[in-house]
Amino acid sequence: MKRIEPRTLSGFMELLPNDQVLFNKLKDSIEKTYLGNGFLPLDTPIIEASEVLLAKAGGETEKQIYQIKREDNSMTLRFDLTVPLAKYVAKNYANLSFPFRRYQIGKVYRGERPQKGRFREFYQCDIDIIGDTELSVVNDAEIPNIIYQILNRIGLEEFVIKINNRKILNGLFEEYNLKDQSADIMRIIDKVLKIGKDGVVEELKKLELQEQSIDQILDILLMKKNNVEMIQALESMDIQNETFKIGIEELKQVYQYALAFGMKKETIQIDLSISRGLDYYTGTVYETYLTKYPELGSICSGGRYDNLAEYYTDKLLPGVGISIGLTRLFDKMMELDLIKRDQSNISDVLIIPMTSKMDAIIPIYNQVKKNGVNAMIYYEKRSIKVMMHYASRLNIPYVMFIGDNELENNQVTLKNVATFEQQTITVEDAVKEIKHGKVIL
Amino acid sequence: MKRIEPRTLSGFMELLPNDQVLFNKLKDSIEKTYLGNGFLPLDTPIIEASEVLLAKAGGETEKQIYQIKREDNSMTLRFDLTVPLAKYVAKNYANLSFPFRRYQIGKVYRGERPQKGRFREFYQCDIDIIGDTELSVVNDAEIPNIIYQILNRIGLEEFVIKINNRKILNGLFEEYNLKDQSADIMRIIDKVLKIGKDGVVEELKKLELQEQSIDQILDILLMKKNNVEMIQALESMDIQNETFKIGIEELKQVYQYALAFGMKKETIQIDLSISRGLDYYTGTVYETYLTKYPELGSICSGGRYDNLAEYYTDKLLPGVGISIGLTRLFDKMMELDLIKRDQSNISDVLIIPMTSKMDAIIPIYNQVKKNGVNAMIYYEKRSIKVMMHYASRLNIPYVMFIGDNELENNQVTLKNVATFEQQTITVEDAVKEIKHGKVIL
Repeated sequence: MKRIEPRTLSGFMELLPNDQVLFNKLKDSIEKTYLGNGFLPLDTPIIEASEVLLAKAGGETEKQIYQIKREDNSMTLRFDLTVPLAKYVAKNYANLSFPFRRYQIGKVYRGERPQKGRFREFYQCDIDIIGDTELSVVNDAEIPNIIYQILNRIGLEEFVIKINNRKILNGLFEEYNLKDQSADIMRIIDKVLKIGKDGVVEELKKLELQEQSIDQILDILLMKKNNVEMIQALESMDIQNETFKIGIEELKQVYQYALAFGMKKETIQIDLSISRGLDYYTGTVYETYLTKYPELGSICSGGRYDNLAEYYTDKLLPGVGISIGLTRLFDKMMELDLIKRDQSNISDVLIIPMTSKMDAIIPIYNQVKKNGVNAMIYYEKRSIKVMMHYASRLNIPYVMFIGDNELENNQVTLKNVATFEQQTITVEDAVKEIKHGKVIL
Repeated sequence: MKRIEPRTLSGFMELLPNDQVLFNKLKDSIEKTYLGNGFLPLDTPIIEASEVLLAKAGGETEKQIYQIKREDNSMTLRFDLTVPLAKYVAKNYANLSFPFRRYQIGKVYRGERPQKGRFREFYQCDIDIIGDTELSVVNDAEIPNIIYQILNRIGLEEFVIKINNRKILNGLFEEYNLKDQSADIMRIIDKVLKIGKDGVVEELKKLELQEQSIDQILDILLMKKNNVEMIQALESMDIQNETFKIGIEELKQVYQYALAFGMKKETIQIDLSISRGLDYYTGTVYETYLTKYPELGSICSGGRYDNLAEYYTDKLLPGVGISIGLTRLFDKMMELDLIKRDQSNISDVLIIPMTSKMDAIIPIYNQVKKNGVNAMIYYEKRSIKVMMHYASRLNIPYVMFIGDNELENNQVTLKNVATFEQQTITVEDAVKEIKHGKVIL
C-alpha cells in the first residue's frame, strides 16, 4: 500500500497527550473563572456566512481569512469571536437579557505566514458585557479583576494590567488640533518599549507636527507616576476639553472600583501610552504584561466600545470585553517553563494483572474506583519493565500487581513508581496509601 | 449605514445561552466520564492537509468535505475524529505509550443537505484504545461500560447497548459460501426494524441467493433470546468455521467482563443483526438505543478494528472505540424534553444596588462570593420590574437589594425570585439562606 506521510499543517498546534493535559487545565481555569463571575457560555459556529463575517472587515483581515471552497464564496471561517458575538446579539436581541454577559472559548482562523509563535488556528478566550443603550462604567472595573483572578489561579503572579481611557487620548488630540494624525501618533507611541522615547520623537517628527506639540503630548502620554499621582496630575492639567475630562473621571472610577473588587494596587498601572490599535475602542482599554517577560507583549487585551453590532442592527449596544490568546500564551508559558509539569497524571494507579483471572481482577478495580481512586487496568501481556515504564510515562504514581497469590489472600502488591517501594496489603489499605500518597506528593 | 442581516448558516447549531448551559453540562458529563476512566485528551486541528485527510476517503465522504479555498486544494476540514487520530498515532508513534487511551471532543464538518436533525457542523465525542501490535479483548468490554456510566450520569436510564462480533458474521457467511454478498446481506438485515422480517426476506430474495441459505442465516441473525441463551445457542451450532468460533468466544468474554465492570444485564443485548455499515470493523461492534425512542437510531456506536492507521504507517495498530454524536443527541433530547431545564442557573444571587455608593456595594459582593455564593451585580439603573425579570430569565433564584438604609444597618434585603418572599437581614444570614435555598430547590 502506498502510504501518506502523517503530517500536521504548519501553524497548527497539536500537542502530545501530557502537554494537552496541561493545556486543558489552563483552559479550564479560565473557563471556571468566567463561569464563576456570571458569564454565560456561547458556542457559535466556526463557519459563518461570508457577508456576515466580512461586514466590517477589510485590509489585513480580508487577506487572512479562510474561505470554504464553493462557487459563491459564501462560507468563511471566523477570524475572531467578536464579529460572531455581534451577529449573535443582533440576531437574538429579543431573546437575550441585558446586560448580556457572555464568555466564549473557541478556535479562530487566520492565514498568517507561519512562523515560530504564530498560529493559523488558535484559541481565543473572550468575555464581553453588552448593554442595551447604556452600560455602567463599573463593568469596566470588573473586567480587569477577572483577569487578575485568572492569572493568580494559573500561577502567573507577577503581572501588571495596564489601563487607559481612549477619551483621554481623543480629548488630548482635539485640544492640540492633532485629531487627524492621532492614529499615526498612537501607532508610533505604541513602539516606545521597543525603540525608546528618542526613537518615538524621531518618528513623530516625520509626521511634520509642531515640535512643541510633540513634546507636550509625549510629556503627558509617557508620564511615569504611581496611579494616584497620575490621576491627580491629569486632573490638575489646564485642559478644558470635555472628552478629556470625562475620560479622566472614567479612568479614576475604573481604578477605584478595581481596587474595591480586590485587585492589588501593584497589579494595575495607569499607562496613557496604551491605546489598542483598533478604532473599535472608545473608552477604557486594557493590556496585560508579565512583569518578567515584557517581550511577550500583551497576553490579554480589550476595552470598552460604544457600539458592538452597528453592521447588523440599529440597536445601540455598548460593551466592554477582553480576550486571551490562549494558544500563544500556552506556547510561551511552555517555552519559559512557567507551567508545572508534574500536574499531568490522569490516573492514580495502574492495576497489573499477574493472572488470567480477569473476573477476579475487575471487582478489585471497581472497588478501588468506588473509593474515589482513578484506576486503569493494563490488560496486555508485557514485561514488568514495559509496564512500569508505561506507568512512569503517564505519570501514574502507583502500580498494583495482582497475581494468584494475592487473590488467594485477598491482597494486592502496591508499588510506588517513583521510589520502587512495594508492599503486599489489603485493597482497603492500598486505597488509603494511594490517597495518602496523593496528599504528600 | 447599509446593514447586513445577522443570520446563522443552516445546518449549524447555535443555541441561546440557557440552552448552551444545558449543552455544556451534557458535554462536561461525557468528558468527566472519559477522564475518570483514564483517557488522555487530544485536540487535533480542525483543518488538516487534504492528502492526509482523504488518504482513505472516497464516495460519500469526498462529496461532503469542506475544502479551504486555495489554488492547490491542500487544506480540508475534518469530517470525523478517527482519521485525525490515525494520523496522530502514526505521526507520534514513538512518543506515545501503548495501549494509548485517548478521548477527543470536537467539532467535525460534513456538507450534508441541511434538514431537520442533520447538522453540517457537529460535535463528536470519541474514545479509542489503541494497541501496539495487539490489544486484549477485555478492552472491548470496558468501552460499553463507559457508555453505561455516561448515560446513567446524564439521566438516560432506559437504554440498551447492543453488541455483536463481526467475526461471527464473517464466519457465518464463509460457512454458507456467501462471503461476496455479505455486505449486501448485512445492509438489508440492518433495515429489519424498519421493514420487518418479511421485508428483509423479500429484499434478500432479489440477491438471488439460495432460499434455504436465506432462511438459515436469518434464523440465526434475527434470533431473539436472552444473552446467556444466545451464547449457548451459538456454541451448540454445528458450524466448524474457525472465525465463527473465535467470534463467539470474544462475544462471550465481552459480555461476561462487561457485567463484571458493573453493567446491569438488561442494558446489554447481544444482537447478531447489527454490523455497523463500515468495512472498518473486524470484531466487537456496538450500537446504543434509547428503549423508549428506538426511532432515534443508534446514539452511540463503534467497535473493534484491526488496523487504525494503515494509510500512514506499517505499524500494526489494532483498536477499539466508540463515538457519541453529541449535537444530534442534544437536539433530540431537547425535542423529547429529556433534559431538565431547571439546572441552568449560572448565578445564585443578583445584587441590586439601590444607592450610588458602589464602594460600599462591592465589598458586600466580595463577601458573598468569598462564602462560596456565585453573585452578580446589576450596575444599570432600571426599574425593579426590569431587574426582577432579568433575574428570572437567567434563573437566578435570589435578588439582594442594598440601599442606603440597608448599608447603615449592615443589612441587605434578600428576595426569593420565585416566591417573592423578602426579608431584611445581615449578609451572613443572606448567605445562609441562599445556600440553604440551593439545597432545597
